[in-house]
Amino acid sequence: MAIISVGTMAFDAIETPFGKTDKIIGGSATYVAYAASHLTRPLQQISIVGYDFPKEELESLKKRGVQLTGVEVVPDKKSFFWSGKYHLDMNTRDSLATDLNVLEDFNPVVPDTYQGADYLMLGNLMPSLQMSVIDQLKIRPKLVMLDTMNFWMETAMDDLKKVLKKVDVLTVNDSEVRQLSGEYSLVKAAHAIFKMGPKYLIVKKGEHGALLFSHNDVFFAPALPLEDVFDPTGAGDTFAGGFIGYLAHVGKTDFEAMKTAIIYGSAMASFCVEKFGTQRLKEITQGDIRERLKKFVQLVNFDIRL
Amino acid sequence: MAIISVGTMAFDAIETPFGKTDKIIGGSATYVAYAASHLTRPLQQISIVGYDFPKEELESLKKRGVQLTGVEVVPDKKSFFWSGKYHLDMNTRDSLATDLNVLEDFNPVVPDTYQGADYLMLGNLMPSLQMSVIDQLKIRPKLVMLDTMNFWMETAMDDLKKVLKKVDVLTVNDSEVRQLSGEYSLVKAAHAIFKMGPKYLIVKKGEHGALLFSHNDVFFAPALPLEDVFDPTGAGDTFAGGFIGYLAHVGKTDFEAMKTAIIYGSAMASFCVEKFGTQRLKEITQGDIRERLKKFVQLVNFDIRL
Repeated sequence: MAIISVGTMAFDAIETPFGKTDKIIGGSATYVAYAASHLTRPLQQISIVGYDFPKEELESLKKRGVQLTGVEVVPDKKSFFWSGKYHLDMNTRDSLATDLNVLEDFNPVVPDTYQGADYLMLGNLMPSLQMSVIDQLKIRPKLVMLDTMNFWMETAMDDLKKVLKKVDVLTVNDSEVRQLSGEYSLVKAAHAIFKMGPKYLIVKKGEHGALLFSHNDVFFAPALPLEDVFDPTGAGDTFAGGFIGYLAHVGKTDFEAMKTAIIYGSAMASFCVEKFGTQRLKEITQGDIRERLKKFVQLVNFDIRL
Repeated sequence: MAIISVGTMAFDAIETPFGKTDKIIGGSATYVAYAASHLTRPLQQISIVGYDFPKEELESLKKRGVQLTGVEVVPDKKSFFWSGKYHLDMNTRDSLATDLNVLEDFNPVVPDTYQGADYLMLGNLMPSLQMSVIDQLKIRPKLVMLDTMNFWMETAMDDLKKVLKKVDVLTVNDSEVRQLSGEYSLVKAAHAIFKMGPKYLIVKKGEHGALLFSHNDVFFAPALPLEDVFDPTGAGDTFAGGFIGYLAHVGKTDFEAMKTAIIYGSAMASFCVEKFGTQRLKEITQGDIRERLKKFVQLVNFDIRL
């Protein structure tokens, strides 16, 4: 089933303890697309790029079933650019540059050909833009998923609360869910979030895995312990892409399906961090994904008689 | 099968955001005993207490199948006392008082009646004392498990390295395993630890669960997300007691059995933190434990077709 995915397509320059890149392709919607397109088609992208965004990159996405009708190309401006340096623990980073460029003018428009999509992935963006996409849809999707971050909680909390009312699944990290809910306990935080609108909450904890909460249930997904996390950039977006990609593939939106979807998301994220940027996501095959999923089964599988 | 358990029996005074206790019963060997005795018997305790340690507490342990022949009672000294205050995140704490008292004279002696035990739990103590217990055993146990902490890495690293050569399972938290191995990646840290002696490594990560490493395998156990962590004191020892208690119950020492044992340890630890001190561990029934284990199964169980 079709997924509409809204987010950034950008350039990143990344420094980690393992090395340094020049400008490489990044952006939340790019990672979502590379992850989800391994699992389902079509992906209907809504984004904005400048004159400098490589044509080959757009072609590479098209070949993977990513529709680009909703991607605006601005002829006289540069693409969004972010540069950052990770600390030794790989969990914290400093932003060295954030050049909004085309992103200053981003006003997402949903093409007519995208209308009727069953899944909507709202990548981390200004909440009013996320809301504008929801408002343009003539039929409400079966599942609306939203990613956001602390920056919007500090600068646009009212708009964020408005869009949260329209959302089924919220995905944030543990410090962000504590900030948004005002609760330290993640269980209490989840119930505070449910009062804001979402019916499901995914708490991303990086190397510690992820938690999925519904009103009555909770599921804990591990992260695969890796020898080295080479570059964590895009891991959260890749996780989201794998999650919604699996749900669209099976056409479901219930808690049981979401549990499996989280494992798919975790598996895709575990590939993402193995190389810089989107490189590893471009290389992997269906066989690689199957092998990785097997590792996740082994990682949590135990025998208990009750 | 019998478990010899060596560690402290003590008084604690604890302050958490939820309240404050006067002197209550604590100590690593106490928590191990309350956890393990729900799963197997006998537990053969080696510890030291002062004249002030309550007789009723010793009777309560005896009723649970805990043998106290190896517990020295010093008639003219007080029991070990620790007092601490937890911060709001419950992961960090300040020690307010550490009165060694009888612990200054602790020289563990293995009673003849304990010889031949199949399992040995070496609670967090000075490494030379842990070594002395191993040296006194006429037959090597099937499984030797050791808990330690950063303090001994800073003050007695040589002795710690000596005793590690004799150990099957090392259990420490994530920052301690990084300190001991000099590796940030937990996968690399595990392989560095294996070169020091242990064949298995358990990395305790508190609210993020635990990882079990062997040379070829890894297993990830979740922590149950709780509304409130009331008092984390003793959770790590309770985890260890549940782990080794289950293994002694089934008489096994292989990786598959350890996976299930970790779930038992996590379940016991999830009870421990629900009330101050050992209170909750004293109350729970076999039915409570079974219900809690079911929650762990639900927490990680997913359906995937490969």
